[in-house]
Amino acid sequence: MAIDSKYSILFESVNIGPVTARNRFYQVPHCCGLGHMRPRAHAAMRAMKAEGGWAVVSTEEAEIHPSSDLSPFPEQRIWDDHDIPALRLMTDAVHEQGALAAIELVHNGSHSANHLSRTPVLSPSETSIDLIYPKQARAMDKTDIRTFRQWHRDAALRAKRAGFDIVYVYAGHRLTLAHHFLLKDSNDRTDEYGGSLENRARLTRELLEDAKDAVGDKCAVALRFAVDEMMGPSGMQASDEGREVVEMLAEIPDLWDVNVSDWSNDSATTRFQPEDGYQTSYIDFVKQMTSKPVVAVGRLSSPDMMVSMVKNGIVDFVGAARPSIADPFLPVKIRDERVDEIRECIGCNICVSCDNMGIPIRCTQNPTMGEEWRRNWHPEQIDARGTEQDALVVGGGPAGLECAMQLARRGYEVTLAEARSELGGRVTAESSLPGLGAWKRVADHRTYDLGQRGNVQVFLDSKLDASHIGELGIRNVFIATGSIWRRDGVGRTCRTPVDVADGASVFTPDDIMAGKLPDAGHVLIYDDDQAYLAGVIAEHLAMLGKKVSFVTPASIVSPWTRETLEQTRIQTSLLEKGVDIIPHGQLRTVGPDHSRVACTFTGKIRTLDCHSVVLVTERHRVSDLFDALRQSANNDAGPELAALELIGDAAAPGLIADAVYSGHKAARDFERDKSEVELAFYRREIIALS
Amino acid sequence: MAIDSKYSILFESVNIGPVTARNRFYQVPHCCGLGHMRPRAHAAMRAMKAEGGWAVVSTEEAEIHPSSDLSPFPEQRIWDDHDIPALRLMTDAVHEQGALAAIELVHNGSHSANHLSRTPVLSPSETSIDLIYPKQARAMDKTDIRTFRQWHRDAALRAKRAGFDIVYVYAGHRLTLAHHFLLKDSNDRTDEYGGSLENRARLTRELLEDAKDAVGDKCAVALRFAVDEMMGPSGMQASDEGREVVEMLAEIPDLWDVNVSDWSNDSATTRFQPEDGYQTSYIDFVKQMTSKPVVAVGRLSSPDMMVSMVKNGIVDFVGAARPSIADPFLPVKIRDERVDEIRECIGCNICVSCDNMGIPIRCTQNPTMGEEWRRNWHPEQIDARGTEQDALVVGGGPAGLECAMQLARRGYEVTLAEARSELGGRVTAESSLPGLGAWKRVADHRTYDLGQRGNVQVFLDSKLDASHIGELGIRNVFIATGSIWRRDGVGRTCRTPVDVADGASVFTPDDIMAGKLPDAGHVLIYDDDQAYLAGVIAEHLAMLGKKVSFVTPASIVSPWTRETLEQTRIQTSLLEKGVDIIPHGQLRTVGPDHSRVACTFTGKIRTLDCHSVVLVTERHRVSDLFDALRQSANNDAGPELAALELIGDAAAPGLIADAVYSGHKAARDFERDKSEVELAFYRREIIALS
Repeated sequence: MAIDSKYSILFESVNIGPVTARNRFYQVPHCCGLGHMRPRAHAAMRAMKAEGGWAVVSTEEAEIHPSSDLSPFPEQRIWDDHDIPALRLMTDAVHEQGALAAIELVHNGSHSANHLSRTPVLSPSETSIDLIYPKQARAMDKTDIRTFRQWHRDAALRAKRAGFDIVYVYAGHRLTLAHHFLLKDSNDRTDEYGGSLENRARLTRELLEDAKDAVGDKCAVALRFAVDEMMGPSGMQASDEGREVVEMLAEIPDLWDVNVSDWSNDSATTRFQPEDGYQTSYIDFVKQMTSKPVVAVGRLSSPDMMVSMVKNGIVDFVGAARPSIADPFLPVKIRDERVDEIRECIGCNICVSCDNMGIPIRCTQNPTMGEEWRRNWHPEQIDARGTEQDALVVGGGPAGLECAMQLARRGYEVTLAEARSELGGRVTAESSLPGLGAWKRVADHRTYDLGQRGNVQVFLDSKLDASHIGELGIRNVFIATGSIWRRDGVGRTCRTPVDVADGASVFTPDDIMAGKLPDAGHVLIYDDDQAYLAGVIAEHLAMLGKKVSFVTPASIVSPWTRETLEQTRIQTSLLEKGVDIIPHGQLRTVGPDHSRVACTFTGKIRTLDCHSVVLVTERHRVSDLFDALRQSANNDAGPELAALELIGDAAAPGLIADAVYSGHKAARDFERDKSEVELAFYRREIIALS
Repeated sequence: MAIDSKYSILFESVNIGPVTARNRFYQVPHCCGLGHMRPRAHAAMRAMKAEGGWAVVSTEEAEIHPSSDLSPFPEQRIWDDHDIPALRLMTDAVHEQGALAAIELVHNGSHSANHLSRTPVLSPSETSIDLIYPKQARAMDKTDIRTFRQWHRDAALRAKRAGFDIVYVYAGHRLTLAHHFLLKDSNDRTDEYGGSLENRARLTRELLEDAKDAVGDKCAVALRFAVDEMMGPSGMQASDEGREVVEMLAEIPDLWDVNVSDWSNDSATTRFQPEDGYQTSYIDFVKQMTSKPVVAVGRLSSPDMMVSMVKNGIVDFVGAARPSIADPFLPVKIRDERVDEIRECIGCNICVSCDNMGIPIRCTQNPTMGEEWRRNWHPEQIDARGTEQDALVVGGGPAGLECAMQLARRGYEVTLAEARSELGGRVTAESSLPGLGAWKRVADHRTYDLGQRGNVQVFLDSKLDASHIGELGIRNVFIATGSIWRRDGVGRTCRTPVDVADGASVFTPDDIMAGKLPDAGHVLIYDDDQAYLAGVIAEHLAMLGKKVSFVTPASIVSPWTRETLEQTRIQTSLLEKGVDIIPHGQLRTVGPDHSRVACTFTGKIRTLDCHSVVLVTERHRVSDLFDALRQSANNDAGPELAALELIGDAAAPGLIADAVYSGHKAARDFERDKSEVELAFYRREIIALS
């Protein structure tokens, strides 16, 4: 893989203890909602990263013992030998592609509830478990610690037998027993495992030494460690104890995988952390303190930044979780100097949300993510076109763009018609709002790609009706006409329109995103969508100096964003901007200068002064063109079509990720036999009965 | 099974279409967190009900198609033939015990997100899905409806092949497509499936007719229908459309399984619905409108009430979900006139919480529930004692009582010592609070049982220390000394004590339950436990006329109680009693006449006037006796013990259910080989790789 380019340093091989990585691209451990419940899907997903050029491909956290039982979440498991065959699927598949396989051994301590195993919960100190379930952990005694070390050692041996090349000790994210021992505020012990930092680090040191002793002949032993908790002096800091830990254990692990804690800081979204490489200032001291290779992360997609981090002695490996999800072929694209083809992570944390929901990983930018096994989808390969030659895509939002791009890759002559003067649809609209700028990459990547191809014609300002489509004579038609926000207040908690008086001033998100804003006065934002947009609009209007009240039937602002690790930041930001948050409120009436809101518990009515209302509730599908074409087809009138597909929000309003997926799927499947396509819906992994 | 007693009517056989139930005890469908992910555990649990005498044993809801994909929840599945072997485990096991097996076919419509399958979400009308995830369902067209009917028919055929005797059509709980079509507010269609009740009921009628046509030769077809939504005129009512539906479809199903909606009403807890048989007044009209057998529920544990319901022509079958969980052997105990041995359901909804969390079912009263396969536990059978003869249990709370009872059943000579003047421990204390009276049954059942046995000695007012235990000379000692609530404010969100000024008046739940109450003035209840107790104490003090503020770092009162379907009722009740609820607040200081509370988002401090504070945060384990005995044993001093076990809250504070389980487990396992006992922790069901 020797190349001679400005990126060649990234393709140098690097030793990690007894093993050698073929280059500097390192997929650090990341969750994926597959784990022990979907081993074949997991192996196929990880293998795709290896195929895409990553030198190291890691698992998500792998529970080492039933006392670290995260049920119902499907993380990885290595409780005993029964788990080895499933893990072996991954190591074999990763090795086949020339990469090293790493496993992140974990004991979650008081972060696990042990709901399935019902073993006692373990912790350095007496404490509630880290879940809203009334159970407390017991402070481990010396016997517990010895036993725990034996479990960890045994798990390392099993990992070696399962074929892993790198075995992790994990002390990060406040999620693990080793980290709980390290942190002052979760360790109140008075024995040699508590008190001084040396004492608190003792367990991590022992786990590393045990692992090296057990498997160090064949496997590298890595330490994943959060150098800073981003809590200032209330937590561990890189300038203080974080640095001391690295100094103390410097040469013990074969590799340092360093990051910041907690997970919401490590996986910060672009909404709150727009800078790629945002962890560098925290971790840049590490390499100076150890001769061992260092890997770090921070949403690193830019090859120039990667080169600079290596050249400046900040890292040996470019670590990635989310960028490797958005583009598993990132290393290969850099190697082949196809940098402009990289699908950059937009930092939306849809991937994270899947793990939080316990469902298979999805990605806004990469619709094949999590579908490698089930649908046999490859992010870079797609079948050449079938019998048809031409395709028309109506609507250039996320579904239409993805569909057009994949159709073009398949070799169809593609016509893309967009009613507005700009491509991108809702992506363009939403990315104009505060914090969502990086989402524009969804449109930019596809617009750029379409522009590079000779078989694509894009028409802007081209709103089509059924007769136009007849005139065009293209027989394969994809309708991606999107959705519009309802103006009547029908949403999650109320299925009948809100009572709006004459003269009342009512806006929808479409108005706001189109720049149509409330006049002076007090604005009430009503969120019965409960996803993310109402919170963004509140931020937007508050930043414009409006006096804003935020009313929602939910108990918090934007509850969905808990799954993307953003909710706390959102509500804090709104409060700091002076937004008045009124939870548990259902909008009943809107008048010219006041609205009435009912308490969702008691029904008690509260009157709020406000001069305009923004209703963020639910969306109408825009499907009139599709309906007209289908109607014509049913009547044997109108254009004769080979395929007519409704995709994206026009078919089912959802996330941008859902729209991209829908467009991708239609482009792949529209000429296939329908019943064969349907089979994939049924494809799943099932419990063994013998 | 012919018996001649006042209960003999309950043991008459009853025909249901082409099949015959051996008696009138009918386990209606209920969720259990086992489903398709734990098929062997599921089969063993259902088989235990059959062994316990139920004539019909049903599954939980079984998804008929990938478009009703409830992932990540492990309900039952019958998507295709791959699911048949797992379901066959259940039908075979249930048949072996002489019972009929029923399956509740379901399509969840807009209640499912289809996170795994990624199929479109279906609904009678355009609507958001019924989950906090930004996705909308599409209104089904006629083709969709025809296709759906075919899926349902195919699923019925698969159910028949899997060996089921009864196949359900499910129109209840607002959880199913058939119900969504039936209800006015979720059906805005203008075709023959919307508008009039006859139109809205058309789909249910068709599903019934399809199922009878497909499998009616061998299987009975049941309809599960919610006659009333308990929303007054805003929803379907038994006095109105509920009755009309029964009239309209009266003779079509082979059995009517009727209840109330939604789930929180059907599975009402004793806290909010203390009356057993609480559904009778809603469903008592049904039998008058149909010649088909009727089953109904309502936490029915009283044999006299059962007899009266049958004799009065209200039901043909006594339906049960929760009472069959608390006591799978309820029918056999009635048959054998061992009514006093019935473990009555306490209506706490721990079983429900497990399904809501996606974990295996647990029960406060029946610690063997969900452990039938994994640990091979039988609720009515336990091994005779091992080599030892005597056992001492210190502490008569839930763990100690259960442990003592099981030890006595095993044949040990049991001494139970309780420090207080009454048995029951925290059960007795908590059940004195408003709404929790029925929880007393946990203690009553066990106290009664112990009283019936000749091999048990109970000592009250007997606080033991290590020297007493030496004097007693009993070699097997179980320490169940419970826990006490912390008085320093350390809880989930703060690991350092709250700053309490001299002269401040601070209470704990133990004080309140012991009758030590705040004086006049304003009381602040601080809930950093976030389970249930603070909400109950707030209710208690408000009912005593105190002015109460409820401060919590959570966003709602008692967030854990969402899992038990109680949260809305709790917060509503407190608001109606005038309690001032302050969410997102962390208690910082407590003074004699005011406290300071920080916003969990911004840190902004708010000063609240209050004259006393009740801290509901975390518990200290009471383990000094255990520690002393262990210390002595380590030093070869003190009494020579064969076994020393720490159980219940003294080992790990948790739910009452956890304490009962802990006591049960210790009684079963203490003489067994430790490593053999540990094996059960690892026992789990694993994905097939071939």
